[in-house]
Amino acid sequence: MPSVDIVEVAPRDGLQSEQARLTTAEKVELIGLAVAAGVRRIEAASFVNPKRVPQMADADEVMRLLPRLAGISYIGLALNERGAERAVAAGCDEVNFVVVASETFSQRNQGAGIAETLDGWRRVAAVVKSAGRRSSVTIAAAFGCPFEGEIGLDRVASLMERLAENDTAPDEIALADTIGVAVPPQVRAAFDVLGRIAPAVKRRGHFHNTRNTGLANAFAAQEAGAQALDASLGGIGGCPFAPAATGNIPTEDLVYLLERSGIGTGINLQSAIGAAQWLGDKLGKRVPGMLEKAGPFPAAA
Amino acid sequence: MPSVDIVEVAPRDGLQSEQARLTTAEKVELIGLAVAAGVRRIEAASFVNPKRVPQMADADEVMRLLPRLAGISYIGLALNERGAERAVAAGCDEVNFVVVASETFSQRNQGAGIAETLDGWRRVAAVVKSAGRRSSVTIAAAFGCPFEGEIGLDRVASLMERLAENDTAPDEIALADTIGVAVPPQVRAAFDVLGRIAPAVKRRGHFHNTRNTGLANAFAAQEAGAQALDASLGGIGGCPFAPAATGNIPTEDLVYLLERSGIGTGINLQSAIGAAQWLGDKLGKRVPGMLEKAGPFPAAA
Repeated sequence: MPSVDIVEVAPRDGLQSEQARLTTAEKVELIGLAVAAGVRRIEAASFVNPKRVPQMADADEVMRLLPRLAGISYIGLALNERGAERAVAAGCDEVNFVVVASETFSQRNQGAGIAETLDGWRRVAAVVKSAGRRSSVTIAAAFGCPFEGEIGLDRVASLMERLAENDTAPDEIALADTIGVAVPPQVRAAFDVLGRIAPAVKRRGHFHNTRNTGLANAFAAQEAGAQALDASLGGIGGCPFAPAATGNIPTEDLVYLLERSGIGTGINLQSAIGAAQWLGDKLGKRVPGMLEKAGPFPAAA
Repeated sequence: MPSVDIVEVAPRDGLQSEQARLTTAEKVELIGLAVAAGVRRIEAASFVNPKRVPQMADADEVMRLLPRLAGISYIGLALNERGAERAVAAGCDEVNFVVVASETFSQRNQGAGIAETLDGWRRVAAVVKSAGRRSSVTIAAAFGCPFEGEIGLDRVASLMERLAENDTAPDEIALADTIGVAVPPQVRAAFDVLGRIAPAVKRRGHFHNTRNTGLANAFAAQEAGAQALDASLGGIGGCPFAPAATGNIPTEDLVYLLERSGIGTGINLQSAIGAAQWLGDKLGKRVPGMLEKAGPFPAAA
């Protein structure tokens, strides 16, 4: 059976955009629920400036409290050398870095242009590789930018080429539809190009369901060669540039879509639904995920 | 540019499952807003027993008040000969009939088994064809049944074969995921088979977004040869067997998905969003459609 790795991003990308905060203990419990459901890769924390992202100020403590389990990979987000050093010191198995496909979004979101960010990546890569950890780079706004609008695939391809260069190539490149505007033909084209430019690099997709295309895009990505897909339990999260929009594609909905399509995820749907409900309770809201409401099919025996 | 007909079903399938009722004048206004947005086929009313479906008791009056416009096709749902006669007399351009793929669902929903329903279709077909109107048959629960669970494609294929027989073949056959359980590979397989069994018959898809797969399924259907797709403005509607679930796929979200994928719909996205907002106001709720919240991309000039 073909399979796809689902990377659980609720503890970082999801929670970072939620109004309600989870305590450190609750974050650790959330990650434990994801692991218990069968998730093997989890974006556990962000090692960025706590003044900019106060929700992630407890990153070191979260990592300290997490159980070290065989086959479970914790991912830390780092946007510079200092963050990468912290993530490595905290015991992250993987470090994720972000490059934005649009110059304007890069300036506003990262406080640095694309060229400067790529320089930063080389320093981060050195830190992560010398520590023997896995690395990934997410190309954000790869399918559209809230400021510049359309992002041509040629621009994304030139970023892929720069990232895939020699000894600083990451183990994985993710194409992210940060603001939820992509459609399946665009996703297929981008993953086709990524596979041609960087055949030795793992490919990951990151989709938001802002315009109801997230699940269709995720499905298109895996058909076009993505070996991993980001998702958040309950579909929590959002985008600061689209306040009314929903967040990441819901993990449990993605598990349903893939497993019913004959693509293994290793995740137990009922456990993922339970974790999404737990998370909704903690956040005090009904999560956008739909399996949590509709239930599996066929109904469990 | 390839294109797909979007059939607007909010006035019938959508409203029928909503708690709030629209007045006859509001229904006519809703249909007018859909037409103004560019919709060319509208499921306008249901000619069933008003005791069973009181929301549709004003079907004749709705049809009487609708403007007759060139190129606009009003569809009436009829489940028996009497209903078909009423739909024809009311001026419906098309009559839609329903056969259920599962015997249990057929008995519970239609009050008749599959064989009896197929007999009924032959009488309905005679009425509709002799009046010179177009006909379609929807195969409901074609991807799964709330009572029987999985529905094998062989069962759906044998229904397709019966329906495609000689002089009672409808102009169009729709495959309906009535309870929102389908996934894209299943949709592709079913539309492939339909195209082989009934190549001269138009193919339509009807998807509910109950498990967040509706848009992915609609996209898969059009790629597999569906020339028409049902959708409801705002994604209103639901399923009596899944109370917490959302309804049909939202028209405006489908327009976004298709148009951004280079598939023409003839529908103006901004007008469809406006109609969805109008409908949400009338129903006193936030509709499930996402474009209504997130807005188009790229942003309108």
